[in-house]
Amino acid sequence: MRRPPQISISRLAVYLRFLEDYIKEKGPQATINSEALAKFLDINPHQIRKDLSYFGKFGERGVGYRVKELIDTISRILGLQRPWNLCLCGLGNLGSALLAYNGFRQMHLTIVAIFDNDPEKIGTKIRGVAVSSPRQIPGLVKKLNITIAIIAVPQAVAQGIADALLRAGVRAILNFAPVKLTMPPHVKLRNADFSAELVHLTHYLSSASQ
Amino acid sequence: MRRPPQISISRLAVYLRFLEDYIKEKGPQATINSEALAKFLDINPHQIRKDLSYFGKFGERGVGYRVKELIDTISRILGLQRPWNLCLCGLGNLGSALLAYNGFRQMHLTIVAIFDNDPEKIGTKIRGVAVSSPRQIPGLVKKLNITIAIIAVPQAVAQGIADALLRAGVRAILNFAPVKLTMPPHVKLRNADFSAELVHLTHYLSSASQ
Repeated sequence: MRRPPQISISRLAVYLRFLEDYIKEKGPQATINSEALAKFLDINPHQIRKDLSYFGKFGERGVGYRVKELIDTISRILGLQRPWNLCLCGLGNLGSALLAYNGFRQMHLTIVAIFDNDPEKIGTKIRGVAVSSPRQIPGLVKKLNITIAIIAVPQAVAQGIADALLRAGVRAILNFAPVKLTMPPHVKLRNADFSAELVHLTHYLSSASQ
Repeated sequence: MRRPPQISISRLAVYLRFLEDYIKEKGPQATINSEALAKFLDINPHQIRKDLSYFGKFGERGVGYRVKELIDTISRILGLQRPWNLCLCGLGNLGSALLAYNGFRQMHLTIVAIFDNDPEKIGTKIRGVAVSSPRQIPGLVKKLNITIAIIAVPQAVAQGIADALLRAGVRAILNFAPVKLTMPPHVKLRNADFSAELVHLTHYLSSASQ
């Protein structure tokens, strides 16, 4: 299996989301061809075939892809054939929005711990998840088998939280704080960048008006 | 000028963010070579040279890139040489977090209107921006020359808000609602997808443990 480029990982997540809704509607025997998939998702069918080709041939001419098989394969590729325990650091507006976001659960990504240093929040449960002090990171990360952390704390404290998470054994971080975190090479870091999304729009509008 | 692939637009935004900080620190005559840029950003120097090559040769051997020139060029490519007026639809947790996010202002992306249907919020100002009823979308989009909208409303009302924005003349939308919006082809739509970010981490952790 060739290693797919980063971009197709993002697209696979989009395909998976759609296919899971599709199979719920059409039943476990559903099939779909790349043209239909392309139309639903507004993506070039050639691109879809190319993305899926990284993972071997499993479409059949005239029948298309068996949706169940496609879901299983994409899930396995994305590491979503098993559940993952996550912690959320920071329960401000962004943290609260992330906690409410139900796309995670659909992918078996479960937030099992929340860390926040507000004494009014510590000890409460939000959406069924207990809020703990960041001092409890070492104990809870191990106890709850947390491998992935979401950082949604203010910029000034993000590196300190990241360091505590790493020492506790977290191996991957999605960082929403607008700061470059320093990480050892064995830890996977993704930075969520809202401006970068908007820049696709300004680029498009500028190119379109030229 | 060849058209860059989508992915390099995202990276250009990252380069720009870094270079703007760098020139503030080092002064207007600063230069940087691709190796140093690569090291600061944890990106392969070959990748950086390739990304920048789409926009012509403007690095000098031995000197590197003139930071000021690089900033101007990247800004122009991304459509950020001019300011843009944005509106934010939905002032829940996510909307509030987006409003507080200062990465937009750095890029001359200014939220000039907020739309929310909560009567308690309408008429107030949050961070200096007035909150209005969605019924005022037609008037305010024109009056304030808004071309880009951020949708952070609940799933169930997102399409209705998008339709109102389009009728009012908005030409690009960044959608945070977990729903596929139907748009005419002349409108540019980006969907922000938090799960897709996390999936890069689960993919990495699964591949790493094999």
